[in-house]
Amino acid sequence: MRSVSVIGIGETKMGVFPDKSLKELIKEAGSKAINDAGIDKGLIEALYIGNFNSSYLCNQSHMGALASEVLELGNIPTLRTENACASGGLAFRYGYLAVASGLYDVVLVGGVEKMTHRETEVVTSALASASDGTTEFEIGATFPSLFALIANRHMYEYGTTREQMAMVAVQNHDNALLNPNAQMHKKLTIEKVVTGFPVAYPFTVFDCSLITDGAVFTVLAATEVAEKLTQKPLVEIIGSGHAGDTLTLASKKIITEFPATIKAAKEAYEMANVKPEDIDFAEVHDCFTITQIIHTEDLGFFEKGKGGFAVEEGLTAINGKIPINPSGGLKAKGHPIGATGLSQVYEAVTQLRGEAGERQVKNAEIGLTHNIGGTASTCCVHIFRRR
Amino acid sequence: MRSVSVIGIGETKMGVFPDKSLKELIKEAGSKAINDAGIDKGLIEALYIGNFNSSYLCNQSHMGALASEVLELGNIPTLRTENACASGGLAFRYGYLAVASGLYDVVLVGGVEKMTHRETEVVTSALASASDGTTEFEIGATFPSLFALIANRHMYEYGTTREQMAMVAVQNHDNALLNPNAQMHKKLTIEKVVTGFPVAYPFTVFDCSLITDGAVFTVLAATEVAEKLTQKPLVEIIGSGHAGDTLTLASKKIITEFPATIKAAKEAYEMANVKPEDIDFAEVHDCFTITQIIHTEDLGFFEKGKGGFAVEEGLTAINGKIPINPSGGLKAKGHPIGATGLSQVYEAVTQLRGEAGERQVKNAEIGLTHNIGGTASTCCVHIFRRR
Repeated sequence: MRSVSVIGIGETKMGVFPDKSLKELIKEAGSKAINDAGIDKGLIEALYIGNFNSSYLCNQSHMGALASEVLELGNIPTLRTENACASGGLAFRYGYLAVASGLYDVVLVGGVEKMTHRETEVVTSALASASDGTTEFEIGATFPSLFALIANRHMYEYGTTREQMAMVAVQNHDNALLNPNAQMHKKLTIEKVVTGFPVAYPFTVFDCSLITDGAVFTVLAATEVAEKLTQKPLVEIIGSGHAGDTLTLASKKIITEFPATIKAAKEAYEMANVKPEDIDFAEVHDCFTITQIIHTEDLGFFEKGKGGFAVEEGLTAINGKIPINPSGGLKAKGHPIGATGLSQVYEAVTQLRGEAGERQVKNAEIGLTHNIGGTASTCCVHIFRRR
Repeated sequence: MRSVSVIGIGETKMGVFPDKSLKELIKEAGSKAINDAGIDKGLIEALYIGNFNSSYLCNQSHMGALASEVLELGNIPTLRTENACASGGLAFRYGYLAVASGLYDVVLVGGVEKMTHRETEVVTSALASASDGTTEFEIGATFPSLFALIANRHMYEYGTTREQMAMVAVQNHDNALLNPNAQMHKKLTIEKVVTGFPVAYPFTVFDCSLITDGAVFTVLAATEVAEKLTQKPLVEIIGSGHAGDTLTLASKKIITEFPATIKAAKEAYEMANVKPEDIDFAEVHDCFTITQIIHTEDLGFFEKGKGGFAVEEGLTAINGKIPINPSGGLKAKGHPIGATGLSQVYEAVTQLRGEAGERQVKNAEIGLTHNIGGTASTCCVHIFRRR
């Protein structure tokens, strides 16, 4: 496998844009990424696109061909990937693998989701379709309730507190205040989180990630080709891992750690030949406050059970030992499902280029992105290094 | 890229099974494929699954994790692919590439669709979501009407006759009579096709492929590994091609040939180092009778405009010059969208193993499969050889 680098990135603002069409979101983010790379789009040999559920929410399937037409990419092959909230991360992985294996030299990888034009019940159903239809969704076990079970068990096993979870939300909102593309620009307090509208104990509405419209695209190229193509600082993909787990929560032996994350991270760390302590910052999949805590343990940043305490001690802040979600994360930057994995890559590249402005992590040289689908039934992890 | 072979195949009967769940379809076909390969399923390193629109038809997304749990495959990575009716073909291509590139040694690749439990209008909407939502679907231009425009133009340009299209249906029904897994076991006549219930001129209901429940799985392995794993005759994948086109019919310059097919076929032929005349039989994407005719031209079996005449002359029959759709095709074997590309592979492997019984193509050594999505906005082509 040969070296691959990210040479262009583009994203829309994340937010509530019921009047923007899928095509407009794709056009904006895709064009930005191609312009950022500064390449002739005729060089793009394939398109990978993550989309979770526009089939249901927008009556629009076949997103690869739609995006290719919108971006005027001609007869290139396209592929839509879908593994729930990890759809974007997998588009990225398969775009990466296509270039790494020598199949293509330059590819476009994007993600898109359009959600806010539908009623909340419809969006809830669309999201719940990522769980088991017959044993979870049909009995009303939507994701907030499933992750609430996980949170309760983590509190019971490790003494993680309600306040520590609230601090995740507070911190991610603080970070999002520094991200012009973030959906939420609103300071939170622990009290506000804890006394918010209850969803499923211990979660209030402030523990849950957002419903978001948005699109993100990236241009990948073989590093040897990229060096001749662009003046942009290259960000190399040095690790890629992908693993899975059962779909249903009931079938998992342990619910306070996620084997898919542990396995995908191991694969990515080994490939990159780095250890958790080498990572300068990470974008992790904080669909709920508890999941950020669990991921930071599973990724090896903190001992099992210490993730909540680490937040309390400020270790995950932008100026902390291992900054987590400097973008604001799914919680505050937003969670446009199929685009989320790509939005993490957008942040990683922005940080490694030193272009993150007020939220810049100091001396960022190696970054990690972590994207899950369902109750961590799918996970992919990528590691990036500034060249 | 290293050599990859198909070492196991399994499919459900194709048909109307409203009471069979997605899980039952997956379990049946997946288990059959693993048993056919005769391997310990612990050797399977990844799962690829094509599914078109269970998100909409069954409220079930995240099909990779669902299938992995049903088949008890542990923590392996999974990927669902979706490019309309080419979803299965692309799962196969990406499973193939993963093994060819050395990423994995053994993978499971499947496809599934469950459609007949929903009302016809719902299924029509689900299918139409593979076209452009705003300029086609919303104005009522569903696929039968889009392909009818194509048929009319082909008749005008090349003198293709109504009867020639009807003969495609008659021939595919004849072939399906010999396929125990086929949905239709009913002889047709040209008169019956032509005087059938009108859908969109020139099509009657007998020119259109079927609405089908079904699942198909295949096991792929690196040939060097496969030789040690199984006693089954190996069927090597010697060519793989993938290309695209705009989504909308209105944006295509020519509608009587499909550039995506021509480009994907060129890629596959070149890789396999074979010519159209070397192909002993082909499973092509006959979503409508006219499309089979056009594909046999675009794949290089007949001159442009001569595809209909070739059917009339019997050249595409099982005992003809180039047997097309010995399985019965989408028209009569059935069209379980996400599984269709895999079902073509199932037939190709069955033929090349010499296990096709009454529909066996004589001296079959090289077979081709051709799968499109939308109005050929996606196409992938695979070429197989008996080892």
